[in-house]
Amino acid sequence: MVKKVLEYIMEKKIREIILNYIPQAKLMNIDVLFSKNGESRLLLPHDSQWTREGGSLSGPSLFALADAALYASILSLKIDQIGALTTQMSIQFLRRPIDLDLVGCSKIHTISKRNAFGEVQIRSLKDDGLIAVATGSYSLKPS
Amino acid sequence: MVKKVLEYIMEKKIREIILNYIPQAKLMNIDVLFSKNGESRLLLPHDSQWTREGGSLSGPSLFALADAALYASILSLKIDQIGALTTQMSIQFLRRPIDLDLVGCSKIHTISKRNAFGEVQIRSLKDDGLIAVATGSYSLKPS
Amino acid sequence: MVKKVLEYIMEKKIREIILNYIPQAKLMNIDVLFSKNGESRLLLPHDSQWTREGGSLSGPSLFALADAALYASILSLKIDQIGALTTQMSIQFLRRPIDLDLVGCSKIHTISKRNAFGEVQIRSLKDDGLIAVATGSYSLKPS
Amino acid sequence: MVKKVLEYIMEKKIREIILNYIPQAKLMNIDVLFSKNGESRLLLPHDSQWTREGGSLSGPSLFALADAALYASILSLKIDQIGALTTQMSIQFLRRPIDLDLVGCSKIHTISKRNAFGEVQIRSLKDDGLIAVATGSYSLKPS
Repeated sequence: MVKKVLEYIMEKKIREIILNYIPQAKLMNIDVLFSKNGESRLLLPHDSQWTREGGSLSGPSLFALADAALYASILSLKIDQIGALTTQMSIQFLRRPIDLDLVGCSKIHTISKRNAFGEVQIRSLKDDGLIAVATGSYSLKPS
Repeated sequence: MVKKVLEYIMEKKIREIILNYIPQAKLMNIDVLFSKNGESRLLLPHDSQWTREGGSLSGPSLFALADAALYASILSLKIDQIGALTTQMSIQFLRRPIDLDLVGCSKIHTISKRNAFGEVQIRSLKDDGLIAVATGSYSLKPS
Repeated sequence: MVKKVLEYIMEKKIREIILNYIPQAKLMNIDVLFSKNGESRLLLPHDSQWTREGGSLSGPSLFALADAALYASILSLKIDQIGALTTQMSIQFLRRPIDLDLVGCSKIHTISKRNAFGEVQIRSLKDDGLIAVATGSYSLKPS
Repeated sequence: MVKKVLEYIMEKKIREIILNYIPQAKLMNIDVLFSKNGESRLLLPHDSQWTREGGSLSGPSLFALADAALYASILSLKIDQIGALTTQMSIQFLRRPIDLDLVGCSKIHTISKRNAFGEVQIRSLKDDGLIAVATGSYSLKPS
């Protein structure tokens, strides 16, 4: 019970950090659905503001979701790493996301004092189809 | 003289496409300084809206500049490829861009009927220091 | 029973292709442990020939394992794609692999007439620790 | 004159390190044509041993050339960084290299105490056509 409450508080804290520290996350109404032990699920609700012609969500929007999802997973492991900086990201766009709510599922593969590396899969909330895959590295501040 | 006028008209056309078809480009006031023969220079003016704590421009903002710069260079070679889609992007963040106007210099390395591949260097407008390097692939529509 | 035999024949066929068509695979004694439905496990036995100073396996050796593992998984879905060509690979080296037998576990995320995209995790055979993660794209020949 | 001699000695030293410390470089007869101030040109002579069906050089061979070329350029800036380790590499294969001697031209974009990042263009020695482009990061040992 206490554990559940602590997890709830932690997720709330991560949600606040994401919205306050990543300008695109706030703008695009990205929400943290889940974030614990280096794994997170973030929601990017469909908004025609971010689509290109044909209704396809723009690349930078997907990148913003991927980046926010990895950042959340780092925070779930080290809540003091608000200043974590993206150093490298590779993103593959597999399918055009047309008129879809999207979910970014991230997982940290390795974390050390100075670096973290993880992966994100972006899927459609509706049919779970894979939209994009990204891997990213982050620079941490040794505390 | 006629050539200069045609180039001017072409750049104006590319600028319009960028602003109308990439939602982040309009939002962030990205401007096309130059675009010709597969090479482009795009300006991202500093705006504290897109900075994270400490004044550093966010990763998604840099990604948006890189993506727009490559898209412009594709258009400078094939103006009918408005529907070109990013298929893959690798971006390396080298230095924190604090309170800086940025320039994205892109170059298409190869273009075929179905694909284009190019590179972007993001530099500070002031001191020309390298901020980020990206490579990207695009899917084209055979006409 | 018949199904098992067919699977066995298929894996044997994939092993033969890997050894005959990827020169580094033969040289390095890479073996196909499992390959089915777009997922494969390939073994790279430790060999001091491929280590750098300190006993760490060289980057090109890990790349060769990742490439062979993805190629095997493509073949497990489309056995006629012997001519599949790597178009892009991103590889992250997470831990130095010292004196270890390695396993490359690959999975194809999407495959179409012309392209395939998948992921590889390279782990130590002994302790299952993650050594490297790669994502790769392949160009296929429409049949 | 003295400067020329020193440069010659330095290049010879880099060549020796490449051949002694990268097993694939020796195996494939990679040679250092030039290496100075963070830029290098390395030759990979054509050898049918490393080709796949159709005469196309294998992906791992191109990766090995890219990796060696970046390593040489790091050494040209910091000769004591023999232990530099590849942490990330993104490579794009643009054209099939059939029966060609290849040149890998590398350039270090940024180098700090702990990290280096650079780029390689792989071209045909004959017609200078672009075969592959790679970007890579390396971890250095603070001295």
